[in-house]
Amino acid sequence: MTRWTLPPEQIPSAWFNIVPHLTTPPQPPLHPGTREPVGPDDLAPLFPMSLIEQEVSTEPWIDVPGEVLDILKLWRPTPLVRATRLEKALGTPARIYFKDESVSPSGSHKTNTAVAQAFYNAREGTGRLTTETGAGQWGTALAFASAQFDLELKVYMVRASYEQKPYRRVAIETWGGAVVPSPVDEPDQPGSLGSAISDAVRDCVGRDDTHYALGSLLNHVLLHQTVIGLEAKEQLAVAGERLPDVVVAPCGGGSNLGGIAFPFVPDPDVRLLAVEPLSCPTLTQGRYDYDFGDTAGLTPLMPMYTLGHDFVPPSIHAGGLRYHGDSPLVSSLVKDGRMEAVAYPQGKVFEAAVQFARAEGKIPAPECSHAIAATIDEALAAKETGEEKVILFNYSGHGFLDLAAYDDYNNGRLTDEMG
Amino acid sequence: MTRWTLPPEQIPSAWFNIVPHLTTPPQPPLHPGTREPVGPDDLAPLFPMSLIEQEVSTEPWIDVPGEVLDILKLWRPTPLVRATRLEKALGTPARIYFKDESVSPSGSHKTNTAVAQAFYNAREGTGRLTTETGAGQWGTALAFASAQFDLELKVYMVRASYEQKPYRRVAIETWGGAVVPSPVDEPDQPGSLGSAISDAVRDCVGRDDTHYALGSLLNHVLLHQTVIGLEAKEQLAVAGERLPDVVVAPCGGGSNLGGIAFPFVPDPDVRLLAVEPLSCPTLTQGRYDYDFGDTAGLTPLMPMYTLGHDFVPPSIHAGGLRYHGDSPLVSSLVKDGRMEAVAYPQGKVFEAAVQFARAEGKIPAPECSHAIAATIDEALAAKETGEEKVILFNYSGHGFLDLAAYDDYNNGRLTDEMG
Repeated sequence: MTRWTLPPEQIPSAWFNIVPHLTTPPQPPLHPGTREPVGPDDLAPLFPMSLIEQEVSTEPWIDVPGEVLDILKLWRPTPLVRATRLEKALGTPARIYFKDESVSPSGSHKTNTAVAQAFYNAREGTGRLTTETGAGQWGTALAFASAQFDLELKVYMVRASYEQKPYRRVAIETWGGAVVPSPVDEPDQPGSLGSAISDAVRDCVGRDDTHYALGSLLNHVLLHQTVIGLEAKEQLAVAGERLPDVVVAPCGGGSNLGGIAFPFVPDPDVRLLAVEPLSCPTLTQGRYDYDFGDTAGLTPLMPMYTLGHDFVPPSIHAGGLRYHGDSPLVSSLVKDGRMEAVAYPQGKVFEAAVQFARAEGKIPAPECSHAIAATIDEALAAKETGEEKVILFNYSGHGFLDLAAYDDYNNGRLTDEMG
Repeated sequence: MTRWTLPPEQIPSAWFNIVPHLTTPPQPPLHPGTREPVGPDDLAPLFPMSLIEQEVSTEPWIDVPGEVLDILKLWRPTPLVRATRLEKALGTPARIYFKDESVSPSGSHKTNTAVAQAFYNAREGTGRLTTETGAGQWGTALAFASAQFDLELKVYMVRASYEQKPYRRVAIETWGGAVVPSPVDEPDQPGSLGSAISDAVRDCVGRDDTHYALGSLLNHVLLHQTVIGLEAKEQLAVAGERLPDVVVAPCGGGSNLGGIAFPFVPDPDVRLLAVEPLSCPTLTQGRYDYDFGDTAGLTPLMPMYTLGHDFVPPSIHAGGLRYHGDSPLVSSLVKDGRMEAVAYPQGKVFEAAVQFARAEGKIPAPECSHAIAATIDEALAAKETGEEKVILFNYSGHGFLDLAAYDDYNNGRLTDEMG
């Protein structure tokens, strides 16, 4: 047996809150004007109250509403797959498992929080959402979820991705969302997640009918993603494994990483590994400090690893990982030594992606391929030592909408030197 | 419950052969030169002997080899999904189910036969395959399967699709296949499946190390697809349904249609409905006659509905349905009145596709969307009569690689007048 599914009634009915498990209690975000800790009222123009409560909650578990479960059931629980063909190609004694989040309607893990955020906004009377998107995985996920709750949606898409990945724009429009390239005021700039956040927040604060939705970074976003790790834990047990030796995930803002890794934080023997692009090495080369979440300095200051809110990463193909900062919760785990981080160059990432595609059949998104590159290195290290290591990685999304990047790689137009 | 999965060990272990269930025994294909019935020796330059035996078999069941099952288990059994959100949007008392073949590595049902064909070729010592592809769904499927068995692959891609759908070419190349646009000798022609078959057959017959693989039309191809209908029957029973009132599938060469419909042929109360594009109306407007499978007249003559082997359909977006002929087995069922056929124009097909995407979250391939358009009409007819009809359709593939077509539709550049 190499693939484990669970029936829809086994989707976790509560999200796992990492906060009670942190060694260092989280520091509060600071108001961008006063630099005082922000309270719920400061966030109310942006988010519905339920999400603000989740953002600061210290409860260990938070119930998933039935309306959210009803939609998650369209594709969850996602399969846990053992990559036996990749193991064989590598000649490793390691057992490699991946959690296949690519089966969601929009093709990535982002739908998990998109549905929850759309639900809470709809319930509290929001009629319209604004958001940013990098590679387009978050924008497509929120467009799908907004259609489910009849919410109007405007997506500010990082211009580099808008131009490189027209198909994700079309998918957003097909689900009924509107898309504009960002930065809106600087048509010559490739943009970044930071600048797109600024555009989306500006559009939101001026209108009473509008809230803003963020696809990563914040505590409530990572909370909604913990269904990934909770299901994986259950499925590994069904597969006859105790616990993984290492959990690997790509890291941009931290949402798919937090989703798969947080439920394993209380298990001290499980290593947790964040994988980021060498061209945007937030956790491996950034400083831990308070910084803005966006380029213009409109958002609260957050305690996190950052390359500086004015950092504009090169236009690499893993657009979802082009972000100057990182989730405060992920940053806290790295700072406290509970989580490790490594950085990979693009060429090596695509080499791993193609090896995976030929072995396992699935073409991964460039973001996801960072985890595959690190997984292969972990498996090769196990081959050296002969260790029967259990590796679990997050297959966070498919690469069907990123094939232009594969075309570049297949034809030698994408190398490590490019980032 | 709205989604039914089955464990991997419940993949059907034998394929269902429709031949013993036909009212009229199948007529043999004729040699293109002598016009005498072709024998196994005539086909040996093209196909391995195991597939030739399956092509003419009258056994009711044919075992699926373990090596094939091992690969099918990567994604099969595929889910059966009840489209409750679409039912609600339509206000129909009908219960709509779809079999989700889009979860395969290449995103369509084509992988079912690709794996079997690659296996038999590899077992009999073939080192290299040639094939044609229309929209690219068959080419990507065979590229995935060829990588699993270390077979070299050359794909002749209909030029209209090669230019409209570069992503599928990139996917084929990522799995290790080579792609050239067809017709190779006429660079100004948009091509058709018929001309691409000619190119692929020409490449095959000249080389001892090479066999040819076809993605639809032939008896053994449709045989391999019957896992779809067999699983669906099992899953409908688990879902508490007796039998569907109608089974709906798009029809180009007939492979996904045969796959879902053949296992229901012995159930006389189940209506079977083929849906084709109005611009290539083989079953609804073609004549039943012996005709070549390709444009150049290199293949055997087959008894089938045909628009004439020199028919070049317009460059519609459902490239997989642009074929002048139809499976002899499907043709026989239509001729004998056991199967119905309808034709839909492009605009109506995309209107249905967008309605489905917003309701159910999944963006369908244009080919698949033909079945959705007909399903919606069946469901609306049930609304008129108040009948609690059970409709099963084949969700034959996703549309992530067809988003250029959606862009045309979303922006009013794709209408019924275009085919």
